[in-house]
Amino acid sequence: MTTMPGMRRQLSIGYDEALLKVVDALKTEGFGVLTEIDIRNTLQNKLGVEFRRYKILGACNPPLAHRALQTDLGVGVMLPCNVVVYEDDAGHAVVTAVDPMQTMAAGHPALAAIAEEVRGKLVRVLERLA
Amino acid sequence: MTTMPGMRRQLSIGYDEALLKVVDALKTEGFGVLTEIDIRNTLQNKLGVEFRRYKILGACNPPLAHRALQTDLGVGVMLPCNVVVYEDDAGHAVVTAVDPMQTMAAGHPALAAIAEEVRGKLVRVLERLA
Repeated sequence: MTTMPGMRRQLSIGYDEALLKVVDALKTEGFGVLTEIDIRNTLQNKLGVEFRRYKILGACNPPLAHRALQTDLGVGVMLPCNVVVYEDDAGHAVVTAVDPMQTMAAGHPALAAIAEEVRGKLVRVLERLA
Repeated sequence: MTTMPGMRRQLSIGYDEALLKVVDALKTEGFGVLTEIDIRNTLQNKLGVEFRRYKILGACNPPLAHRALQTDLGVGVMLPCNVVVYEDDAGHAVVTAVDPMQTMAAGHPALAAIAEEVRGKLVRVLERLA
């Protein structure tokens, strides 16, 4: 048994409320949301299939992103930090955040300190959703 | 010595031409560009710092994304597939693409077949830029 990389939190609130809380919590930790992909709309428009409510937010903490890019220009393939919000079968929200130690720092010790700092912020984002 | 995950290609053409070619090549392989982050503008606006020309394109192949999401709802933290275009110090473009075997399939054998297929497409995207 293996699990998808990332950090996951099951919430007791609904999808719309969770989205607002996630954006607020990210802001508190210095992240802006640079991109937003509505997976349900995308799959509906491109494939004509039904899918649950599901959004991928691309979060960026500019000072930390700048430090990471100065350390390695190639780190952009691992940016921004994705935070996913989706609706489970019971109508509650699930939030998952990428673990930067598993992405930007993988095979790249020079980025470990920055990745650990970003990870700490994302952990606190998930904790704020309680 | 370690290297940032991903697949890299140094080009002899410039940044603007490379961006157009990358979007065309992605389209040929069934990827649409869902998101685009202009790192130079973002760092200028948020931090007031100068940075080289650098964009992160979020590429999505909808049928493969749908299959991956049906295999594991949590895969969204590794989507879309990032393709980075930046300008090197000589004014030429460098293109790097995420390697899905290092992201969505990491620790998740059930996604290996899909990740391998996506990887093959991204390799061909890079080859088309010659």
